[in-house]
Amino acid sequence: MTTTTIEADARLFTTPAARTAYAELIGEMREIAVLRSTLSLLAWDQEAKMPRGGVEHRAGQIGMLAKMVHQRSTARELGEKLAVCEGDGGLAADPHSVAATNVREARRRYDRQTKLPTELVQEMTLTASKAKAEWKEARKAADFSRFAPWLAKVTELNRRQAECFGFPADGEPWDALADGFEPGCTAREVEGVFKPLRDRLVALLDRVMGRPGPSDAFHRLELPIDKQREFVRFVVARYGFDFDRGRLDESTHPFCSGIHVDDVRMTTRFRIDNFADALSSTCHESGHGIYNQGLPREHWGTPAGSPISLGIHESQSRMWENQVGRSAAFWRWAHPELKRHFGAPVAAFSEADVYGACNRVEPSFIRVEADELTYNLHIMVRFEIERALIRGDLDSNDVPVAWNTKYREYLGVEVPDDAQGCLQDIHWSQGAMGYFPTYTLGNLYAAQLFDTARAELGDVDAQFAVGNFAPLKAWLNEKVHAPGMRYRAAELCEKVTGAPLSADPLLTYLEGKLAPLYRL
Amino acid sequence: MTTTTIEADARLFTTPAARTAYAELIGEMREIAVLRSTLSLLAWDQEAKMPRGGVEHRAGQIGMLAKMVHQRSTARELGEKLAVCEGDGGLAADPHSVAATNVREARRRYDRQTKLPTELVQEMTLTASKAKAEWKEARKAADFSRFAPWLAKVTELNRRQAECFGFPADGEPWDALADGFEPGCTAREVEGVFKPLRDRLVALLDRVMGRPGPSDAFHRLELPIDKQREFVRFVVARYGFDFDRGRLDESTHPFCSGIHVDDVRMTTRFRIDNFADALSSTCHESGHGIYNQGLPREHWGTPAGSPISLGIHESQSRMWENQVGRSAAFWRWAHPELKRHFGAPVAAFSEADVYGACNRVEPSFIRVEADELTYNLHIMVRFEIERALIRGDLDSNDVPVAWNTKYREYLGVEVPDDAQGCLQDIHWSQGAMGYFPTYTLGNLYAAQLFDTARAELGDVDAQFAVGNFAPLKAWLNEKVHAPGMRYRAAELCEKVTGAPLSADPLLTYLEGKLAPLYRL
Repeated sequence: MTTTTIEADARLFTTPAARTAYAELIGEMREIAVLRSTLSLLAWDQEAKMPRGGVEHRAGQIGMLAKMVHQRSTARELGEKLAVCEGDGGLAADPHSVAATNVREARRRYDRQTKLPTELVQEMTLTASKAKAEWKEARKAADFSRFAPWLAKVTELNRRQAECFGFPADGEPWDALADGFEPGCTAREVEGVFKPLRDRLVALLDRVMGRPGPSDAFHRLELPIDKQREFVRFVVARYGFDFDRGRLDESTHPFCSGIHVDDVRMTTRFRIDNFADALSSTCHESGHGIYNQGLPREHWGTPAGSPISLGIHESQSRMWENQVGRSAAFWRWAHPELKRHFGAPVAAFSEADVYGACNRVEPSFIRVEADELTYNLHIMVRFEIERALIRGDLDSNDVPVAWNTKYREYLGVEVPDDAQGCLQDIHWSQGAMGYFPTYTLGNLYAAQLFDTARAELGDVDAQFAVGNFAPLKAWLNEKVHAPGMRYRAAELCEKVTGAPLSADPLLTYLEGKLAPLYRL
Repeated sequence: MTTTTIEADARLFTTPAARTAYAELIGEMREIAVLRSTLSLLAWDQEAKMPRGGVEHRAGQIGMLAKMVHQRSTARELGEKLAVCEGDGGLAADPHSVAATNVREARRRYDRQTKLPTELVQEMTLTASKAKAEWKEARKAADFSRFAPWLAKVTELNRRQAECFGFPADGEPWDALADGFEPGCTAREVEGVFKPLRDRLVALLDRVMGRPGPSDAFHRLELPIDKQREFVRFVVARYGFDFDRGRLDESTHPFCSGIHVDDVRMTTRFRIDNFADALSSTCHESGHGIYNQGLPREHWGTPAGSPISLGIHESQSRMWENQVGRSAAFWRWAHPELKRHFGAPVAAFSEADVYGACNRVEPSFIRVEADELTYNLHIMVRFEIERALIRGDLDSNDVPVAWNTKYREYLGVEVPDDAQGCLQDIHWSQGAMGYFPTYTLGNLYAAQLFDTARAELGDVDAQFAVGNFAPLKAWLNEKVHAPGMRYRAAELCEKVTGAPLSADPLLTYLEGKLAPLYRL
């Protein structure tokens, strides 16, 4: 960011003092961001490249840099500069301006980091470390009762954190926790969208389960890993992921790390007998990657150049994975490419076979293996349970019963044991509550944004069918990526799509896709 | 390093104040080392992995961390702690103890970093940046006259730096520069070893050039790069490079980066028609890697856990590249392995063919393409010229004539133009003077250390001939790597080999190898 840019952004301030404080605030935020981006590289390297002997030293490097970032992010001077900026009334003239965005979000972050007493942070760190170890043991033994006291402790600490953060009188503690992942998100709003979504998804699942579906034979095919590697790289390059400004590597769990708008690293994973997983994982991560590469370069390191929320980030990954990568139009283009890359082994599978296999619905009790339809039901179970825990409406000992009941009710499956039930996810054991709904918010935003893109871009199916993804990418760059954090997720949705977030677009999308496949 | 270790190391101090200052000094040095190791990762990633778009941001990351390292390394408090440690007479009882080593070398580094005025450092940075750009242009045009004024400026700044560092009354400015790469090294000592080496190398080259030598047909063989990759990895794993605590990647210029004793990254390069370069480069870097992995873990981040000098580092790379990797015994073992890995393409080449090709002598005017014999003559030309420049005995405009004359005299070759002559190396343009001799010092130390290893380890040829490199590695670990910086290079040489550094071992080694090959 040049000094000129900062001065231009600061023009709304009425006093020179505020302009100076703003320039200093931006300078400090950018330096902190450089340190954070170094932490991102250390973390990327640890997952994708580091020899296993390096783990202890890496913890030392990360610990030292994280401490520096924390000290600088919570420094009194930073708070003082913020106060000077806020004291100047000029920003009120344009609350979505770059400067207003930067000051508003810097305040949010500063408050979240300084409102927690050090003792509480330390207690959470210690508890999470022990809870994670106990969760692993409990899961191994498929015995939730071992983990129950730790979940109670984690819940209690999350409740205390929520009290420290604070929330409006008409809100609830869960909101203060979710705000860390999805700024401005409230349980009431989530419930308002999830409730109709759940009812209609359960009904749709019920109809689907009564019908014969497409075969999954394509998924069981064994394909050489070097060819898989070539193919997924070919697809995401065509999507528009820029390999001159990013990489694709391999790790146990796929992820995407935005070190800088010009240095975005994503990972995927390969198994000889699971090409579908490699392709969908890579398409998914490339959605995150294209978002990170599309953020405004001139505002890098400040909120105006940062992603809005986990939900919006997930909307980008889901859209490229599902609305694009699981569409009939995509396979119209990709099926001949599949034959060109893999040759004989795929010859027996028609375009319809592959498209069908990628869109099978199969309820299971494991979230990470879920299809597009049932995935959201998995999330709702978790949202309802963690909200009840935080409210004090559910005792941690009663989680397995609540869990298994909801799985029966929503997904129609019997959970065989706790390991494959309420112990399957790591999130709560790490202290993260308020996180899960961002996955389904991502699906909802993806569907609603995609409907608007479709309306504004002409025949996207015809574009996809010839491997032309450039119009969609350019639209997302302009509508979703370029604004950085100028709007909250809900605001951006309304601004871009003309309507508040609704369950309808996702339901219409799923019904529209599954009706012909399952002859509903 | 545990507190207990530091306390044990501090037992020589006579006062609690010195023990406290020492513990604080070690703590601070370790934190600085963690930052430096993060810089190493940033640099490794830039060369080996980073997408090209990341270059600008990476400069920002490196700049910020380098500034932090510089500020902490030159902090007044650090100097005060050092002074308290030095003020306590206790360390005199054992000048090679861990504590004495750490204090002595910390002082050396501190003085080198604080003795230069900021303006001089800035002027050198700026000049080097411009000089490098001009050097590139001059080399492209093969016109030294364009670079001459910049070399004069770099020389002048180096001379001013040397005056700031200071040097003994019987020394000269070059010594103060070399000390940054090879602590304690003086031009007089270098000259004392280089002079007899040069005379006998020139004579040996003269004899070799009159005889028919081995064929280099093996070097022109085209071999698939994935097989080359497998083979070099196989060899250096057998050498004892630990892939659980290190990596091998690819970059334009091979290098080795010791991020930590348990995280050592080396690179190599491949060309389908240059397997010999890939193999020797990888063997070379693995010598650096094995040294870095062999440093004492408990003293990581302090001088007692650091490499002695560039010369000793180079001795390790040269030994594994040449004394081991170009030996007849090595090829006794490696030739069948070569056939096993590459199959038909190498079938026509006998063990003697491969061994001969790897040991051909071929004078040229390009240093980086030189063989074992002539390499040292390239270095001497550079040492003599840079020493004369610094002394004021040679004007920068006269460098081409001096250069070409020496190449004719030492190597018997006519330099065709400046680009292939005195403009071929980047070092001076970057401001580095006093660096070149470390290459030949490495060759000399390698030969002398290897003679002692051979005398102490029994029949190393028989060991190599069955691919058993463990005894040599263990010997180097104990004699050269474990002591860290407790001894200066010259001291270690005398301690381990029983004699001061001499040209004889290298000459005997080269004569012994070339006599049968060239039927001298």
